Amino acid sequence: MAQTFQYEKPFALESGKQLPGFRLAYTTYGTLNEAKDNVVWVFHALTANSAPDEWWPGLVGENRYFDPAKYFIVCVNVPGSCYGSIGPLDINEDTGKPWYHEFPLFTTRDMIRSYILLKQSLGIDKIRIGIGGSMGGQQLLEWAIEAPDTFENIIPIATNAFHSPWGIAFNASQRYSIETDPTWKERNPQAGIQGMKVARSIALLSYRHYETYHRSQAEQDTDKTEDFKSESYQQYQGEKLAKRFNAFSYYFLSRSMDAHHVGRGRGTAAEALGRIKAKALVIGITTDVLFPLREQQFIADHIPGASLKAIHSPYGHDGFLLEFDKIEHLLKEFLDKKTTGVLSSRSRSSINLLL
Amino acid sequence: MAQTFQYEKPFALESGKQLPGFRLAYTTYGTLNEAKDNVVWVFHALTANSAPDEWWPGLVGENRYFDPAKYFIVCVNVPGSCYGSIGPLDINEDTGKPWYHEFPLFTTRDMIRSYILLKQSLGIDKIRIGIGGSMGGQQLLEWAIEAPDTFENIIPIATNAFHSPWGIAFNASQRYSIETDPTWKERNPQAGIQGMKVARSIALLSYRHYETYHRSQAEQDTDKTEDFKSESYQQYQGEKLAKRFNAFSYYFLSRSMDAHHVGRGRGTAAEALGRIKAKALVIGITTDVLFPLREQQFIADHIPGASLKAIHSPYGHDGFLLEFDKIEHLLKEFLDKKTTGVLSSRSRSSINLLL
Repeated sequence: MAQTFQYEKPFALESGKQLPGFRLAYTTYGTLNEAKDNVVWVFHALTANSAPDEWWPGLVGENRYFDPAKYFIVCVNVPGSCYGSIGPLDINEDTGKPWYHEFPLFTTRDMIRSYILLKQSLGIDKIRIGIGGSMGGQQLLEWAIEAPDTFENIIPIATNAFHSPWGIAFNASQRYSIETDPTWKERNPQAGIQGMKVARSIALLSYRHYETYHRSQAEQDTDKTEDFKSESYQQYQGEKLAKRFNAFSYYFLSRSMDAHHVGRGRGTAAEALGRIKAKALVIGITTDVLFPLREQQFIADHIPGASLKAIHSPYGHDGFLLEFDKIEHLLKEFLDKKTTGVLSSRSRSSINLLL
Repeated sequence: MAQTFQYEKPFALESGKQLPGFRLAYTTYGTLNEAKDNVVWVFHALTANSAPDEWWPGLVGENRYFDPAKYFIVCVNVPGSCYGSIGPLDINEDTGKPWYHEFPLFTTRDMIRSYILLKQSLGIDKIRIGIGGSMGGQQLLEWAIEAPDTFENIIPIATNAFHSPWGIAFNASQRYSIETDPTWKERNPQAGIQGMKVARSIALLSYRHYETYHRSQAEQDTDKTEDFKSESYQQYQGEKLAKRFNAFSYYFLSRSMDAHHVGRGRGTAAEALGRIKAKALVIGITTDVLFPLREQQFIADHIPGASLKAIHSPYGHDGFLLEFDKIEHLLKEFLDKKTTGVLSSRSRSSINLLL
């Protein structure tokens, strides 16, 4: 059920900027039970929305692992996005005009601070399971550190404790592409859209892998010297995103990802992760170019008692959106057996390849 | 010594287009000995020039492995580049105006066919050693297949027998960036230059590696939320290339790389490699994202008697430009010991990590 949460009190961002309020679009599935102990909070990644049954159909929905018949599932559209939550195309109350380039930076910490207010309004205390991949996992980690008593279990997937120089460089090239689009200076929803198409095509390279392209974009005709499949594929993916997204949301969410650092103001990232009380299953993907396995290793090394599992996938980072069966298998192993204590002897952050 | 070779007869390209002639800029070091058996032919990569002592100073020059006192070293600027050979800013004799967007595609095969004419004019028959990395290695392989009796030894580094869908996707995103620059339509040398800056920043990501950025662009201040080092680095590298290159050369050479396929018109890539008679040392870099080790494995698997060595480097693909000591070590092992037969028992395409 798609819903809207309107917060009408001042809300301070990490940057020091204060908003007069904010709006969050969120979707719920199922019913909060009487004991209020069946909450699953799902976090989406960069360009997705608050409907995980659309972008995670193998994991969320009727007869899936996260079944609305069993769980009360919540997913919020990230602030800065264009799927219903406060975003750059909204009216800035101070000026009466759209924010556009002046939209304030929401860090992943700002995001989860807004979710905490929504959670309170929903009458939720504890969250049984928090799960999210990529930028979704970044938010999950922030929240599990900021409010260590909230989550019983967390499953961060293909994510990191702070965005790497490599990841920032990928995002920087994408923003560079948007900035280079001369229409980016304009104040209208289509500003920078050509640049965003190129940005998307760059991003794809980081989401996939040599093997992914080898499998899907290989040429049968070895004699051709132009018009290669993977060439039109890159453009097609840019065009496709341009039909459903805007360059402002893309630009600011990219900056949010870069600003992600759980250690900010908390000593180090390792110390911050050490505050987490939730039981953690950290999942990585062996072929992930953008969030390589070492980043999940780092997370698992510093969350007390965490376990780390690696999925072997030909899809690279995108595996977190595609490897339903492997993720479900790990969820069952971690969540269902755990209650019987079977996993209590699991070794700390041991990597087990799931082939 | 920088020189120019002007070929004034018709020259047919793979595309079927016929040029009235072409110009090659090339540099020679040292002297051709009387036996004419001391020739080293060095091939440069995408944006370099015909002066390997500038971009490969650890390997070419006085007291280096390729010492002009010993060898007659030749390097040609690739057709399509902007360092003296025929290029898109030249006048098209048919129109009396610069080629710009109408510059014809030189495939790697066209390139080496032009080099063969230069070689003849230099009075060279055999080439003792051919060496090149990346797009340079692509040309070297083409030549060793096209004229199997020319080379005694070849050392293709961090290269491939045909450009991969993944590699093409990286290049396609870069051309997409240039095409998106509205000035790209213009007919002047600066057309598309902003797009080329972004393109370069994308390319860098494929030349480096997670670890490279981790080492050189890590932040000391973990509290910052913007102005990251790797962000300005991406832009800096774009600006830097724009001072010495143009978008036309970049665009067409990128297409040349994509069109590279040694199997074109020769059955398969494997069959084509099977024609090579030169003794081959194929070098790969374990961290190469763009030309991963499996590509060098493929080359070594199909060149009769070839050996494969892998260099471990934190620099990714760029390692071919930086790992002088490791490359020199392999050259000595392959070229100097070979004459005594020491390497005759080397196993076919065995990977030996040089740590």
